[in-house]
Amino acid sequence: MWTAQTPPLLQAIRANLIRQEETIIFALIERAQFLLNPAVYEQGAILPPPAPSFLWYFLRETEVVHARVRRYTCPEEQAFTDDLPAPILRPLLDHSEIMPNDISVNDQIYAVYLQDILPSICASGDDGNYGSSATCDVAVLQALSKRIHYGKFVAEAKFSANPDAYIPKIRARDRQAIVEELRAPEVEDRVVRRIERKAATYGRDAELGIGQESCKVSPQAVAQLYREQVIPLTIEVEVLYLFGRLES
Amino acid sequence: MWTAQTPPLLQAIRANLIRQEETIIFALIERAQFLLNPAVYEQGAILPPPAPSFLWYFLRETEVVHARVRRYTCPEEQAFTDDLPAPILRPLLDHSEIMPNDISVNDQIYAVYLQDILPSICASGDDGNYGSSATCDVAVLQALSKRIHYGKFVAEAKFSANPDAYIPKIRARDRQAIVEELRAPEVEDRVVRRIERKAATYGRDAELGIGQESCKVSPQAVAQLYREQVIPLTIEVEVLYLFGRLES
Repeated sequence: MWTAQTPPLLQAIRANLIRQEETIIFALIERAQFLLNPAVYEQGAILPPPAPSFLWYFLRETEVVHARVRRYTCPEEQAFTDDLPAPILRPLLDHSEIMPNDISVNDQIYAVYLQDILPSICASGDDGNYGSSATCDVAVLQALSKRIHYGKFVAEAKFSANPDAYIPKIRARDRQAIVEELRAPEVEDRVVRRIERKAATYGRDAELGIGQESCKVSPQAVAQLYREQVIPLTIEVEVLYLFGRLES
Repeated sequence: MWTAQTPPLLQAIRANLIRQEETIIFALIERAQFLLNPAVYEQGAILPPPAPSFLWYFLRETEVVHARVRRYTCPEEQAFTDDLPAPILRPLLDHSEIMPNDISVNDQIYAVYLQDILPSICASGDDGNYGSSATCDVAVLQALSKRIHYGKFVAEAKFSANPDAYIPKIRARDRQAIVEELRAPEVEDRVVRRIERKAATYGRDAELGIGQESCKVSPQAVAQLYREQVIPLTIEVEVLYLFGRLES
């Protein structure tokens, strides 16, 4: 729970999460300028099998390039695809305080992005901008993945601030009690309201003034995405992290 | 000159250019969250030679991926690097009305980005975020390149709307007369003022209210970049395009 008594580490994490909101909203606004372009996500529509879809091919190729420059040696970055090449740079020294882990909810992020998020921000139809759409998709997926997996840092900070509240619940594998300890509904409400204000500010046409009809992306859709996808998936990452927290 | 009598084609081009302003400003704001990180741009600092720099390596690898998905078959996209692989997709049918050409001012865009733009938007120093910085750099460079090379469409539309004003000047290779015919200082002033307003809107912290001190990127720096780099380089593309306009 983030209050005036919030410990410094959690305050730093919170500032980082707030900055990531801009990245997510900018990326959604960029994607929303193109139509839904279903062919990008259908197997065989643009590329022949075995490529699962044009987006997956493009995401994979992008992750190969990013893996070589050590993106996935950073503890807050999780790749969507497997068997990536080794970095050509020496790994970053990892000063993070989280425990080593291989937790990833990227499969769920990818699924909800295609099923729920894309249709809520893009108009239906096909404008042929497949490469542009996939480029924006990759930016959104990477931004969402980083934000959601940042839950590992949140969980570590909450655990470290109050281990006695978590240790018995972790030992008892009591998922519901851990979730209740982690969650702070009034903070979640504040986050969702802030997201809606930000999406309205950044998504409005600077020339037309504030107004739903001039927004490049629906502020309500972005707020709902946070409420229904980003926050629950972050909690899921926090729970998975805490389940493994006592093992080393 | 864009006025109430602006032809429909020029109005459509103008709407496209205005939308691209958001992409450029969002990309600049994203880059500005990291320090200057000079190592990204220095030969030998991160990667051994012959790589000219870490940014150039990363830009090249990104362009290889984008070339395969036919980014550079689009007449408004120009690659920064050469000898890119052939597309794995069949080329888009080109419905554009511009003349075939190989005009590129990307070398100049790359140079002014490093020399003038980066130092105007990033605080000095090294925060180690080399991959993140280079990812943002590529987004800015691609957005600037697209915007500036869109001058080919602008030039074609202006020429088509009034060929008699251009043909004698082109035949006489009278660069200065062509530039005077192309430019509309009051439109340029309007663009620069709009850019400054947009950068203030999108770059402000949605929680703190408007104010220079809370901006993620200096609105004046972004406006100056448009005045001193984007507009002159666009005019340069327009002139180069018109010089070749009568050749086919």
